[in-house]
Amino acid sequence: MKIKLAIIGSTGSIGKSALDVVREHSSNFEVVALAVNTNVEKLAAQIEEFKPKYAAVANENAAKSFQNANVELLTGSDGVASAAALEEVDIALVSVVGIAGLKPSLAAVRAGKRLALATKEVLVAAGPLILEEAKKHGAEVLPVDSEHSAIFQCMQSAGARGSESVERLIITASGGPFRNKNIEKLQDVTPEEALAHPTWNMGSKISIDSATLMNKGLEVIEACRLFDIPAEKIDVVVHPQSIVHSLVEFCDSSVAAQLSNPDMRMPILYALTFPERWPLKLPRLNLAQLRELTFFEPDYVAFPCLGLAYEALKTGGTAPAVLNAANETAVSSFLENKIKFLDIPRLIENKLAEHKVISNPTFEDIVSSDAWARRNR
Amino acid sequence: MKIKLAIIGSTGSIGKSALDVVREHSSNFEVVALAVNTNVEKLAAQIEEFKPKYAAVANENAAKSFQNANVELLTGSDGVASAAALEEVDIALVSVVGIAGLKPSLAAVRAGKRLALATKEVLVAAGPLILEEAKKHGAEVLPVDSEHSAIFQCMQSAGARGSESVERLIITASGGPFRNKNIEKLQDVTPEEALAHPTWNMGSKISIDSATLMNKGLEVIEACRLFDIPAEKIDVVVHPQSIVHSLVEFCDSSVAAQLSNPDMRMPILYALTFPERWPLKLPRLNLAQLRELTFFEPDYVAFPCLGLAYEALKTGGTAPAVLNAANETAVSSFLENKIKFLDIPRLIENKLAEHKVISNPTFEDIVSSDAWARRNR
Repeated sequence: MKIKLAIIGSTGSIGKSALDVVREHSSNFEVVALAVNTNVEKLAAQIEEFKPKYAAVANENAAKSFQNANVELLTGSDGVASAAALEEVDIALVSVVGIAGLKPSLAAVRAGKRLALATKEVLVAAGPLILEEAKKHGAEVLPVDSEHSAIFQCMQSAGARGSESVERLIITASGGPFRNKNIEKLQDVTPEEALAHPTWNMGSKISIDSATLMNKGLEVIEACRLFDIPAEKIDVVVHPQSIVHSLVEFCDSSVAAQLSNPDMRMPILYALTFPERWPLKLPRLNLAQLRELTFFEPDYVAFPCLGLAYEALKTGGTAPAVLNAANETAVSSFLENKIKFLDIPRLIENKLAEHKVISNPTFEDIVSSDAWARRNR
Repeated sequence: MKIKLAIIGSTGSIGKSALDVVREHSSNFEVVALAVNTNVEKLAAQIEEFKPKYAAVANENAAKSFQNANVELLTGSDGVASAAALEEVDIALVSVVGIAGLKPSLAAVRAGKRLALATKEVLVAAGPLILEEAKKHGAEVLPVDSEHSAIFQCMQSAGARGSESVERLIITASGGPFRNKNIEKLQDVTPEEALAHPTWNMGSKISIDSATLMNKGLEVIEACRLFDIPAEKIDVVVHPQSIVHSLVEFCDSSVAAQLSNPDMRMPILYALTFPERWPLKLPRLNLAQLRELTFFEPDYVAFPCLGLAYEALKTGGTAPAVLNAANETAVSSFLENKIKFLDIPRLIENKLAEHKVISNPTFEDIVSSDAWARRNR
């Protein structure tokens, strides 16, 4: 029996890797739905290859220009959400950029699907809500992010007492392209420099987040939500080689780590096949060839986004949603050359300072806080 | 309900660490029996502290000199074996030096106990026999060795298909005190130099084995037995810091690793409490403070013992028992300054060449091959 997939964000970096994995295990996976934002050209090619029953296009203008006799077309953000919740779907892989992942994620868990979640902003903005809904509807939320997949894999050796035995999560950070720069040298870095990530080839939003270390900040929040571990038990360590994807320390001082060459196909497949592991034709790790793995404390002064994320997490309520929205808008402005690199944390800090936090927010509270944080750029 | 322990080899390095662990969790462990070879003085002190019902002394002369009104005394190798198999015992920790571990290990598994095994020579000489008997009597064999404990911990994230998903075991080696020496420089090394292990404080036999890399060779054989993984899927990598205790590579290219500061209390406790993890007051790992973990290919030319072990494993039958016995006698001779360091592999190689291998050996075949290999020094 094939595992039936909805791939939400199929033309992005994760979506394409997911389809690579499906290709390698084509007799075990069936693609039921593909969803994109605007790239209907690539969508058409994917439809031809994977023959899904449904296709969804989020952007209404792009949807208007799209015709395909072989699929049932769903449009708009509601169309995308319903693609993630289709009766026939076993697993919805959500890998769209930013807060747009919220609706399809919520739809998937409410329909009791396994949610393979690559969009970290979803749990950052609305973690407690999503996980509560998942619990209510018997849905699983499995991480696709390499760090959270690593933690999830390490958790398997926590033993019979599960997360009770966990003492600390250690999230690794490549350090991004500016790892060796101090705050003075970061004044005038350009979007082009910020986009040149040393170990991972990713989309532009996440590449900038890697350069500011906000990516790690969002991951700390996501890890707190996913694994129910408080902020003070989550550390970040800089590890430039991106080989150790994260670690878990247990109460007996033992530390579990997950390693692999940086390739998203591994964590994607794991989220789809867990509790099984399926083979992947990827280059194997050769430690003697790598020779060294190095580790450093992060520089909280040069990269204030990391500290801001910890603060927002400790504040709780709508603060992480505001952090995330303020970050998304600041990153866009930076990519458009409207602001400087170090303005990103400044703008976020200001937004957080202005924000009146709502504790235990509803879905509507989160959406309105998100919208509020995006205004008055 | 307390976990009831027989500690076979209680005055050795592992035995003392085991009693440290018992001390830290004294309300959860009960020591039912302590067994030693000759050190009755230390035994008396341990009896006073841990109040076991039984004590066993292997060496008959030492036993004669020993009197203690508070315990039931068992003597000789049979006495030690029966201590490991006592009705009241839940777990027998066997941590005696060399082939002397065979009898109590066999007794423990035949009595259906959990065998927490620190004596690697037992599985090297008689792995298939021990494991068959364990299976027959519903006994578990759990590793105490840091490397095998690491592999066992990593195996927990193999997933639903268990060892079917395992592609490779990677055993780490500190490289011992002579890691940077080539074969010329090894000609004239002394026992004192060989005993000075850089990262682990251990008994003299195992310290010499670390210096020759025979320790890793024995571990490769033990890992093959314990985890049912063929020799060609077991690699050794030199890792001087002894922080990563071993790794397991899965079919999806993911690699699980277990890390901790080098302290045997962690793997000992794990073997006693598995599938649970219990807290231990040990210093926590600090990766940023360590800064780097390095990895190298082992030097098979300077350390021929490693290659000899692989060969003996591939030959099978009584070959590993002969390898082990020849190594034990050669190490003794070296410690007594009767032979040189590089004579150790030479003597073993000669013994293996002379030996007529018995396939599928019985217990008696193993004992007689062992005795044969020890003759004509």
